[in-house]
Amino acid sequence: MSDPTPFVVAGIQCAPQLARPDVNLLMILMWAERAREAGAALAVFPECAVSGYCFDSLEEAMQIADTVPGTATEALESIAKQLNLHLVVGMLERDAEQLFNVAVLVSPAGLIGKYRKIHLPYLGVDRFTAHGKDGFQVYDTQLARVGVNICYDCSFPESSRVMMLAGADLITLPTNWPESGGCAVPDFVVPTRALENKVYYVAVNRVGTERGIKFIGRSSIVDPFGRVLASADDSEQMLLAEIHPLQSRDKHIVRVPGEHEVNRLKDRQPDQYELLVKPK
Amino acid sequence: MSDPTPFVVAGIQCAPQLARPDVNLLMILMWAERAREAGAALAVFPECAVSGYCFDSLEEAMQIADTVPGTATEALESIAKQLNLHLVVGMLERDAEQLFNVAVLVSPAGLIGKYRKIHLPYLGVDRFTAHGKDGFQVYDTQLARVGVNICYDCSFPESSRVMMLAGADLITLPTNWPESGGCAVPDFVVPTRALENKVYYVAVNRVGTERGIKFIGRSSIVDPFGRVLASADDSEQMLLAEIHPLQSRDKHIVRVPGEHEVNRLKDRQPDQYELLVKPK
Repeated sequence: MSDPTPFVVAGIQCAPQLARPDVNLLMILMWAERAREAGAALAVFPECAVSGYCFDSLEEAMQIADTVPGTATEALESIAKQLNLHLVVGMLERDAEQLFNVAVLVSPAGLIGKYRKIHLPYLGVDRFTAHGKDGFQVYDTQLARVGVNICYDCSFPESSRVMMLAGADLITLPTNWPESGGCAVPDFVVPTRALENKVYYVAVNRVGTERGIKFIGRSSIVDPFGRVLASADDSEQMLLAEIHPLQSRDKHIVRVPGEHEVNRLKDRQPDQYELLVKPK
Repeated sequence: MSDPTPFVVAGIQCAPQLARPDVNLLMILMWAERAREAGAALAVFPECAVSGYCFDSLEEAMQIADTVPGTATEALESIAKQLNLHLVVGMLERDAEQLFNVAVLVSPAGLIGKYRKIHLPYLGVDRFTAHGKDGFQVYDTQLARVGVNICYDCSFPESSRVMMLAGADLITLPTNWPESGGCAVPDFVVPTRALENKVYYVAVNRVGTERGIKFIGRSSIVDPFGRVLASADDSEQMLLAEIHPLQSRDKHIVRVPGEHEVNRLKDRQPDQYELLVKPK
């Protein structure tokens, strides 16, 4: 594959409705059209953008969850094809008796993959979902190597680190940050994930309220040096930024030639990290 | 051992002189006295506080490096005993033909241990030092379980994570952040390390200039929720903060009882992290 060229990513900080996939898919279509008009090649939506998040029971959530592939991913495939756009979208997946919090990546050519959320807080529908056990996913798309994390994964440095080691150029984070979590993650954890891995990081939260739980927005797009390229307050909006995938591939950083240089990858010392993979 | 009680830590943002261990040990004594007068039980000094940092060759640095134990640690033991104070101090260690960038922990009862810096940037004396291969060190002291990292270790989330898993209540980071590294690490990486591990983090940089390399100060003491308790500009000064070791031991965080709870330790999923320890 030839070297990737720069492209525009859109972060869609929107307000999905609880248990209304029909309405939410229309909203996704509307925002995807705006993203395409703004020149985006990839649009990233929040966690559970198709389904909503604050379900009160497994049974209630299972009724709204979909299979992957399924009705929702078919609708997303149609949007992606029609607009020539890549999409990362959060939803709930039903697999036999199990419920998973997933994000799917869809290209104009169809569904590329799904990531099942690995780290689960005790909050909202995650009280009822099963832990993803399929690893952290990095997808080699026509645009770039795209990694997917979901919300609470960001609090665990292992999540983005594994994706950096798997070759991600940018990490997308569909999220549902509630008010009760404070602002530490958008304020400083997100830029840390970008900087420590020398990758782009696209964190897209939702806004609005579900069953008394208010979401804080504060989405951002951060470059591989931890510099914020675009960031949001708590209102509905679209963030845009240009991604240069090659910026992420070379992990060497020359601060002063021949005097101060570092390498985010080669300077790691994995033989000293054994404790990280010790079973709980 | 009974539960640890709160104590005061002092972060000594001072200006060591290159290749003047005699002068620097006097400076350390002077600051240690001030820390003790201010009620501190632990004083943390910068990286290479005994030796200075910007050596131009291995030979030059080897002449200033000391053995551990050795002359410098004997002086530090004397200070710690006299003032009834714990000290974390950076220095250069000579071991046969090898040079290590180390930080020693000294209690009123004597030398507890040394940590050999694991992650090395291409900068200053680290161009000539050998990689530490003895793991990340956590020391069970009378005050708390104290972890030691040095400078560039902070850019690798694995460093503090391993120490959290080894039981650290607080992580000390003697550092020599130069101007060429920018302010991202003090601005957002340091509080991220505290938050993601639910530990206290005490980052102590130096100020002043050595051979044209200026150091930025910006030391800080951060609590286990990522809140900055004390922080410095670029002038010589002492930071003080109260440490409550028990705050670090319970990794469970109740944001809204029965509605939003997380656990920094139990929510990890180590079976998904294998890539982290794969050899380079």
